[in-house]
Amino acid sequence: MCQLLGMNCNTPTDIVFSFTGFAYRAGRTGEHIDGWGIAFFEGRAVRHFVDHQAALVSPIADLIRRYPIKSTNVIAHIRKATVGSVILENCHPFIREMWGRYWVFAHNGDLKAYEPVLDGPYQPVGSTDSERAFCWILQSLRARFAERPSRDVLAEALRGLCADIATHGTFNMMLSDGTELYAHCSTRLHYLVRQHPFATASLSDDEVTVNFAEVTTPDDRVAVIVTEPLTANETWLPFAPGELKVFVDGAPV
Amino acid sequence: MCQLLGMNCNTPTDIVFSFTGFAYRAGRTGEHIDGWGIAFFEGRAVRHFVDHQAALVSPIADLIRRYPIKSTNVIAHIRKATVGSVILENCHPFIREMWGRYWVFAHNGDLKAYEPVLDGPYQPVGSTDSERAFCWILQSLRARFAERPSRDVLAEALRGLCADIATHGTFNMMLSDGTELYAHCSTRLHYLVRQHPFATASLSDDEVTVNFAEVTTPDDRVAVIVTEPLTANETWLPFAPGELKVFVDGAPV
Repeated sequence: MCQLLGMNCNTPTDIVFSFTGFAYRAGRTGEHIDGWGIAFFEGRAVRHFVDHQAALVSPIADLIRRYPIKSTNVIAHIRKATVGSVILENCHPFIREMWGRYWVFAHNGDLKAYEPVLDGPYQPVGSTDSERAFCWILQSLRARFAERPSRDVLAEALRGLCADIATHGTFNMMLSDGTELYAHCSTRLHYLVRQHPFATASLSDDEVTVNFAEVTTPDDRVAVIVTEPLTANETWLPFAPGELKVFVDGAPV
Repeated sequence: MCQLLGMNCNTPTDIVFSFTGFAYRAGRTGEHIDGWGIAFFEGRAVRHFVDHQAALVSPIADLIRRYPIKSTNVIAHIRKATVGSVILENCHPFIREMWGRYWVFAHNGDLKAYEPVLDGPYQPVGSTDSERAFCWILQSLRARFAERPSRDVLAEALRGLCADIATHGTFNMMLSDGTELYAHCSTRLHYLVRQHPFATASLSDDEVTVNFAEVTTPDDRVAVIVTEPLTANETWLPFAPGELKVFVDGAPV
């Protein structure tokens, strides 16, 4: 299995604190050592980093921990391989372009006997069930919408597609084109919203504490979505099984 | 204008030496300060790094100079903006998936009044003439071939497409899906092949010297393709205007 981490904000924010705790699960406090990846939106553009080394030892993950890349939408993934070997093309998140926007996708869970008909323009490059699901989602959306629909219409379509895929197994996933962040829970996903008045947070996976009041302005709002809560002293809200949430400007809508 | 750098090898090789000299043109020995990017193939997968900061000062470029990522096909680009503003989505190289492979593309030159009809699955995310040309190339190839054709058939098709685009302006470009590297010259492009017996090379843009005999095996072969020669003591061969070369296993075929 794998773990997912997402962030959606109303102002560009770095993910150094959350990624630091998350990366410790890749070898120190967790067994997710079969690669990792992270994608940062900057406007319509994406910075994409993947590595088949564990996030705990990867020089590229070290860069992410030390270089505060500011973004309004981030999706990260640490992998414990179940389907597909430990090679770079199987590392999440995956990216494709649709409707003139980049779409970033990461998945946690196993899909059993999942072989959707992929006869559209999106073909998997690697061998994971996850990338097949991503290609099928994009193919299905493109077949239905000639251009990007509104957030509500897109969310409704995604709910149906995720429910369909989830009949094949566990389908916790995050998807974004840099505007909103869509998160679907089939078994485990938690989130919290940090906003004024900001408090101090302490990582569960390391002795790191941040006083967000010192690094934010009163208008900032940040939603963090993750498989397992990252901090011990904040209240993380669980998703309901089968729930798809849309995060906009740092909060669910 | 911009500058291009490509590498095609028969065994995974790092590009630290060439990229170091190339990056000096982004602010020290050249004026290409409006962003940069590099893509490394590892098998079918791509590591993609872009930054809108100059390669000379970018922390990510610093990682590339210090962390020897080994690859058989690399495409890099430093940008001096002419069309499209200095934002991340306008940084080359661009990536799209076609036929279940990632395709990486970078362009040097200006295309005048270039507005191809893009009614296929590939739409530009940024505002450059280069990304429009890339989308049009992929759209045209996909319309002609349901799956990846042989190297010779693909090269012949690309020759026609490049000639068509070059009627709109300067079109020096590099394209790869990780198997071969295709390079088209409309005005300026040079290459060399390094192979046994390896010698010492000295960068033109910095006081850096490498004795390749110490870091290679006799079977290694590396082709380096670049806008302007990177070393002063090696013989770089110019492309002819209008020429498309295919590099396989470290040499043109």
